[in-house]
Amino acid sequence: MGSFGQIHSNCEVENLVSDDEVSFKKEVNRSAIECAVKDLLLGLGEDINREGIRKTPFRVAKAFFEGTRGYRQNVKDIIEGALFPEDGLDNNNKIGHGGGVGGLVIVRDIDLYSYCESCLLPFQVKCHVGYIPSGQRVVGLSKLPRVAEAFAKRLQEPQRLADEICSALHQGIEPEGVAIVLQCTHIPFPYKDIESNDIGWVKLLVSSGSGVYENKNAEMWSDFFSLLKFRGIDNDKVRLKGPLDQCWCPSLYAEVSSKIKAISTPIMVNAVSSIVKSLGEDPTRKELVETPSRFLKWLMNFQCASNIDIEMNGYISNTNGKVRFDDKEIYSEVNLPFWSQCEHHLLPFYGVVHIGYFLSKGCYPIGKSILQSIVHFYGFKLQVQERLTKQIAETISPLVGGNVIVVVEASHTCMISRGIEKFGSNTATIAVLGHFSTNLAARTKFLEYSKCYIS
Amino acid sequence: MGSFGQIHSNCEVENLVSDDEVSFKKEVNRSAIECAVKDLLLGLGEDINREGIRKTPFRVAKAFFEGTRGYRQNVKDIIEGALFPEDGLDNNNKIGHGGGVGGLVIVRDIDLYSYCESCLLPFQVKCHVGYIPSGQRVVGLSKLPRVAEAFAKRLQEPQRLADEICSALHQGIEPEGVAIVLQCTHIPFPYKDIESNDIGWVKLLVSSGSGVYENKNAEMWSDFFSLLKFRGIDNDKVRLKGPLDQCWCPSLYAEVSSKIKAISTPIMVNAVSSIVKSLGEDPTRKELVETPSRFLKWLMNFQCASNIDIEMNGYISNTNGKVRFDDKEIYSEVNLPFWSQCEHHLLPFYGVVHIGYFLSKGCYPIGKSILQSIVHFYGFKLQVQERLTKQIAETISPLVGGNVIVVVEASHTCMISRGIEKFGSNTATIAVLGHFSTNLAARTKFLEYSKCYIS
Repeated sequence: MGSFGQIHSNCEVENLVSDDEVSFKKEVNRSAIECAVKDLLLGLGEDINREGIRKTPFRVAKAFFEGTRGYRQNVKDIIEGALFPEDGLDNNNKIGHGGGVGGLVIVRDIDLYSYCESCLLPFQVKCHVGYIPSGQRVVGLSKLPRVAEAFAKRLQEPQRLADEICSALHQGIEPEGVAIVLQCTHIPFPYKDIESNDIGWVKLLVSSGSGVYENKNAEMWSDFFSLLKFRGIDNDKVRLKGPLDQCWCPSLYAEVSSKIKAISTPIMVNAVSSIVKSLGEDPTRKELVETPSRFLKWLMNFQCASNIDIEMNGYISNTNGKVRFDDKEIYSEVNLPFWSQCEHHLLPFYGVVHIGYFLSKGCYPIGKSILQSIVHFYGFKLQVQERLTKQIAETISPLVGGNVIVVVEASHTCMISRGIEKFGSNTATIAVLGHFSTNLAARTKFLEYSKCYIS
Repeated sequence: MGSFGQIHSNCEVENLVSDDEVSFKKEVNRSAIECAVKDLLLGLGEDINREGIRKTPFRVAKAFFEGTRGYRQNVKDIIEGALFPEDGLDNNNKIGHGGGVGGLVIVRDIDLYSYCESCLLPFQVKCHVGYIPSGQRVVGLSKLPRVAEAFAKRLQEPQRLADEICSALHQGIEPEGVAIVLQCTHIPFPYKDIESNDIGWVKLLVSSGSGVYENKNAEMWSDFFSLLKFRGIDNDKVRLKGPLDQCWCPSLYAEVSSKIKAISTPIMVNAVSSIVKSLGEDPTRKELVETPSRFLKWLMNFQCASNIDIEMNGYISNTNGKVRFDDKEIYSEVNLPFWSQCEHHLLPFYGVVHIGYFLSKGCYPIGKSILQSIVHFYGFKLQVQERLTKQIAETISPLVGGNVIVVVEASHTCMISRGIEKFGSNTATIAVLGHFSTNLAARTKFLEYSKCYIS
C-alpha cells in the first residue's frame, strides 16, 4: 500500500458497465442483518426486549443499508449528462491552460464517511479531488463529491478508496489526469491500559493519480498541493502516518483490553460474518476474513455490566484542578476522554467528560485515575449520553458529599456518519447535584473554568 | 422581530396534526417551475438552447423541490418512535438534575441551509438546539437536527425558523423547555458601487425559547449559553446584527447596481411568482408579495453581456503587491471578491480571485480597481467557474504582455445548500498563460505568495 499508488488493478470497472448486475450483486439483506444484530446484543448480555434497544436491530440494518448505498450507485450515471463543453484558452496561439483545456480544477475539503473493511467501524475522510480537463470537456463540479461519496459508502480501505475514485473519474471524464488526496481518520481502539489518556486518533494521508498525475513525482502535483496548501495541507506530509506502516486500522494491532470479561462466541462471529455477506460483500475475501473477529475486538468492550469495581488506592491525589468559588473550592478534572457505543445504532460516540465537585467535610479529593475509571466504566457499555452523564454524577456524589457537576461533550457517529449527516455537530449534556443544581453562579463558575482548558 | 421572541403565533400546528393536508397543500409543481425558469433565462438575454443551460430549468425545478422538502415532512412522525424512557437522577432524595429529568441536552453546530422568503436565495444557518427532559422522556439526539432541517427546508425568515423549531420540539417532546439559537448568514447583494471591496455578509443571531426558556431573562439561559460558549458564542452577542434592525435580507434595502442595463419585465415577475406558487406557498402572503421583484433585483445583475467596457483611467496604480522571482517581479492582486451565478442551477457562487502577472516592456501595471472591474464583469453573468477563470486570464493577458496566472477560489451554493450538501467544500480553478504555463517555479512562487494573504 503505497501513498502514491498505481491505479488499483481491481478498479471497479463493473460500476462503469452494468448497474443491474451491481445492484443485484450488492442487494442488502436487511432481515438477515436484524437477526445478526439480535445475536450480537444477546452475546453482549443485553435484554433485547429492553425499550432502548428493542428497535436497535432495525436501526442497525437501516444504518448499514444507508451506509453502503455506494454499492448500488452507478458512477457512469452520475457523470453522464453532467459533462459540458467548455472552450480552452484562446490567446492567439500563445501557450496557456484554462477552461475546458488544461486548467486544474479542484474541489477541496469534501467531508465523507466510509466503513473500514477491517473492523466495520466508520472512518472519516477529508477528500480533495482535482482533474485537468481535456478535449473541452468539464464536468459539473458537484459530480466530483458525488463520485467520491459513491465509493466511500462501501466497505473500504483508504488507498483503495482513493484509487477507485481516481479511476472512475478518469474513465468518466477522460481528462488529462485526475489527482486525489484523502486525509483519513480512524477511531482508536481501547488499549489494554484504558486508564491511559493517550488516545491518539489514527491518521493516514493517501493519494492516487491518473494520466499526468500517475507518476507521483510528476511536476503537476506541485500545483495541486499548492492549491491544497491554501487549506493547510503540505506536500511533505503525504506519507503513511499510522502507528504501523502496513496496517492503518487499529483493530489489526490493538490488544484486547484487560477490562473485557468474556470473549466473543462463535455465534457472534457468525453474526458479523452474516452482516458482511448481507451487504453483498464476500466474507471470504482476503481482507474480510478476519473482519468479524476484529469488529468483536471492539464490540466486546461494551459488554453489559452492572457493578462498578474501582480500586480506591488512588483516592487521594493532587491532580485535580481547583477553582475558587465564594469561600469554597470547586475541585475539577476536565477533558477526561471516553469511548462509548450508542445503544440505538451500535455505533461509537466519544468525546470528553468534565467533572467538578465541592468537597464535604470528611471526604477526600478523588484522584484523576479514579475519575477516569468511573468515566470508562460507564462509557464501556451500550449507552445513551444522557444516561452516561447522570450515572457518572450519581457515582461521584456519595464520594464527595453530594455536590457534583458533570458535563459530557461528544460526537455521535450515528449522527455524523449516516442519516442526517451533520458533520460538525456535537452534543453536550449536563447533570448537576446538590449546590450545583441550586446555585447558578457555581455552575457558571465551573463552566467558565472548564472552557479555558478546552482546545 | 425580537431576538428572544415568544413562540410564533402561527406555529405550524398543522405539521403536528395532518400530514396529508400539508402534502397536498405544498405539492410542488415542477413543470410550472421549469416554464418559469425558461422565462427568466430569456429575460436575462440567454439562448435557452445553449448546451450549458439547456437543462437548467429541469435542474432548478429539482433544486427547488429538494430545497423545500421540509413542506412535505411531518415533524410528528420524526419525533414519534424516537422518544425513549430514561430515569432521572436518583440520589436519596437529594436535589439533582440529569438523565430523563432536568438535565440540559444540547446538539450544537448543526449546519443548515434555508431559503430566504424575501429574496428566494439560500441562507446559511448554524443551529444550536437544546431541551430539558421531563417525565423521563428523552428523544433520540438525531431528531433534533432532523426537526430543525424540516423547518429550514422551506421559505423562511430567521426568527420564524427559530420559533417553529422550538414550538414543534416542545409539542413533540413535552420537555421542561426548549432553547434554540440560530446564527444566520445571508449573501450580500451587490451594492450600487460594485467596485467596493466592502462585501460584508449579513449576519443575524436569533433565539427562541419555550417552557422554562420562554422568558428571555430566565436564569436557565445561562447554562445554555455557557455550553455554547465552549464553541465561541457569547450571550451578549444575541442581538440583531443586520445593517438595519427591521429587515435582515439585503434585498430589502439593496440599491440596484448601476451596472444593470435593463430592468426586469412583467413576464419575469410573473415567472418568479409562479415559482413561489408552485412550491405550494401563497404568493399573496404579506411577506411574499414583493419577493419576485426582490429576487429579480438579484438576478438582473447577471444579465447576458458580451462586451467588456472598462474605463482605463485607473490603469497605472501602486496598489499591486509585488513578489520577486529570479530577476523579475510578479505583480499580484489577491483576494479580489466576486459574485457570480451558476448557470447550471441559477444559484450563487462567490469567493475571491487572485491575479498575478509579469509586466512586459511597454506595458503598465493594472490598478486594483481595474482588475476588480474585470473580475466583476465576468462574475456578473450566468457562469461556470472554469470559464470565469479563463476569461479573466484572457482579458488581462494582452494588457500585460501575455504572462498571467489567475486563481479563483469559490463556494458554490448549488453544492453546499442542496444535493450533495457538502458544507465545508470549496473549489479552486486555475488558468495560466505564457511563462506561468511553462514555468512551474513561477506558478509556485505566486501561489506561495498569495497564500500568505489569505485568511
